[in-house]
Amino acid sequence: MTQNHPSPIDPAKLTADLIRCPSVTPEEGGALQLLQALLEDAGFACTRVDRNGTPNLFARWGDKGHAKSFGFNGHTDVVPVGDEAAWTVGPFSATEKDGMIWGRGATDMKSGVAAFAAAAVDFVRQTPPEGAVILTITGDEEGDALDGTTALLDWMADEGEAMSVCLVGEPTCPNEMGEMIKIGRRGSMTVWFSFTGVQGHSAYPHRANNPLPAMARLMDRLSSHVLDEGTDHFDPSTLAVVTMDTGNPATNVIPARSKATVNIRFNDAHSSDSLTHWLQQEANRITKETGIEVDMEIKVSGESFLTPPGPLSDLVAKSVEAETGTIPELSTSGGTSDARFVKDHCPVVEFGLVGKTMHQVDERVPVDQIHQLKAIYTRILSDYFG
Amino acid sequence: MTQNHPSPIDPAKLTADLIRCPSVTPEEGGALQLLQALLEDAGFACTRVDRNGTPNLFARWGDKGHAKSFGFNGHTDVVPVGDEAAWTVGPFSATEKDGMIWGRGATDMKSGVAAFAAAAVDFVRQTPPEGAVILTITGDEEGDALDGTTALLDWMADEGEAMSVCLVGEPTCPNEMGEMIKIGRRGSMTVWFSFTGVQGHSAYPHRANNPLPAMARLMDRLSSHVLDEGTDHFDPSTLAVVTMDTGNPATNVIPARSKATVNIRFNDAHSSDSLTHWLQQEANRITKETGIEVDMEIKVSGESFLTPPGPLSDLVAKSVEAETGTIPELSTSGGTSDARFVKDHCPVVEFGLVGKTMHQVDERVPVDQIHQLKAIYTRILSDYFG
Repeated sequence: MTQNHPSPIDPAKLTADLIRCPSVTPEEGGALQLLQALLEDAGFACTRVDRNGTPNLFARWGDKGHAKSFGFNGHTDVVPVGDEAAWTVGPFSATEKDGMIWGRGATDMKSGVAAFAAAAVDFVRQTPPEGAVILTITGDEEGDALDGTTALLDWMADEGEAMSVCLVGEPTCPNEMGEMIKIGRRGSMTVWFSFTGVQGHSAYPHRANNPLPAMARLMDRLSSHVLDEGTDHFDPSTLAVVTMDTGNPATNVIPARSKATVNIRFNDAHSSDSLTHWLQQEANRITKETGIEVDMEIKVSGESFLTPPGPLSDLVAKSVEAETGTIPELSTSGGTSDARFVKDHCPVVEFGLVGKTMHQVDERVPVDQIHQLKAIYTRILSDYFG
Repeated sequence: MTQNHPSPIDPAKLTADLIRCPSVTPEEGGALQLLQALLEDAGFACTRVDRNGTPNLFARWGDKGHAKSFGFNGHTDVVPVGDEAAWTVGPFSATEKDGMIWGRGATDMKSGVAAFAAAAVDFVRQTPPEGAVILTITGDEEGDALDGTTALLDWMADEGEAMSVCLVGEPTCPNEMGEMIKIGRRGSMTVWFSFTGVQGHSAYPHRANNPLPAMARLMDRLSSHVLDEGTDHFDPSTLAVVTMDTGNPATNVIPARSKATVNIRFNDAHSSDSLTHWLQQEANRITKETGIEVDMEIKVSGESFLTPPGPLSDLVAKSVEAETGTIPELSTSGGTSDARFVKDHCPVVEFGLVGKTMHQVDERVPVDQIHQLKAIYTRILSDYFG
């Protein structure tokens, strides 16, 4: 090829540019606009597929409806910064320090989006493939995700757009680059408990019925319970109490009400139905012991699912091994991701960098790892179309 | 005696006059001024002992430093009216209806102050005793009480003023007039716990360290623990968890911190020191089990105290029985009162009328009960000096 190509996209610089877009769910923060400009410049047909205020970006290089199309999926929204005073750098400063880029979204997953966008742009410019390359990027993966990747997939079905296979670029490696590909995910459900007793004076607790000991006991029991020891392709299920709140400012008043929220990540030993049954039994037991009324409101984010090992996981694993020297484990560990929606559209696996600091204060990513991830994604495209 | 005395003081009319003074803490509202005028007219030497804006009144009939002096203690401040629209009458109208006087402070404790002021005035006029009668009346018992009865007692110590014994006129009877004298009170302390772990993603709980299960387990253990079964003169100690708060809005984030507050009312089987030691042990045990850091901030409102049954309680009980036909129980139940300060000055007991409607909307007091209370206080003075 003698064509005069523009310079390759620097995925580390692109990561930093994306971090500087303050795209805490549900804010777009300029992140999708930045990507759209980059992709359109490389010949991608871009469409903003916003739904109910949630921003989403669809981008395709190549013919619509081509029988061979490789898809990437990711998100540009990030979780809140938490205790901003505890950060070493500004959470949206994208400061480069000690060979790393620091900031909210550095690992989850602006680096992943930057790496696949950079790989896709350079690949179609340098070796235009026989087929299509599709990017589906949402601004709501960390929130309710009601109008995020599902909105993109709904729109694609309506428009006759399709991915033959899809790679989700979420961080998948626990400690070392290349060590893990995800071929499924545990299910996830959230339960909001409310506890109702009888208000009273702290000096006369026998005249009140305090909901707080009931809440404490139920949360202790639920978090102490071992759900399972793991299954063939899955790690053990986990339960996390994420908040407990009362808001009673008076030390001489026993409150009437309190609330707690629990998040469960479950494998194929359970379903949301079987877990709901268990929770209801435990809630009833507490009511029987304490007289405190316990109400539950439940939201199921997804049941557990699995893309069995096969051609797609082989393709990704081979590229990972070639670039890192590591044979990746095929895993189903970790949280939910939008792969739970994509799996109804086409075969899907997930591969990304090391997610150690995701959602934490001082989230950060090694610059080298971003470049390595771009190289892996590039090799996957090359092998897929080669 | 052939001296021409003024008419006896009507304690019901005085109660109504005091209710019409809107003395919600920290407002004086004219209540202490009214009492001062009445007492000075009867020959009491009065001094306003205000401190840091809190109004207090000291009144003595008889010689300063007399070896035999009977003291009364009470307060004219009242708690806020709450939902004014829910009152049947104006909360400061002192309306007489159905044989009762209605208004804020009717039971807690303008009737008590009126009864002992009326008893003291008539007693010194009709049978001037060999000794002194002292009234210590504060305008801050319902608030922080930092500059109320303590200010009066500090000033008395500086001035060489002293009560040999003291009767606090708080309402003490749960249902029927005359059924209860208080000879002590439980102690009270409040503990603010904070729990610190490591923030993280709900899907990877093994990488975080969630403070909430630690908080739940500690609060379950503390509230399940039986502190004691009661002692000779005291009800069982109680522990109430009054609030637990995290404030984490994200269901996919394990928080780093959480807080809980506990209020303990304890009898003479404990001290704030012994309870602090126990709480620290339980906190350390949780830290050892979970790795969660547990901090405690403690405020002691008062230690438990007891004026053992003896001459003073006998004197009061005898008068109560003579006027009501009821043998009063000697109790230490209920919340704190200013007796916790007076007990460091001289033997102290508490006796007053039925407190059922105290702090409530439509607080009210039977007119007959106010007259009966004055008669009891008069008989106590008469027997003490007789």
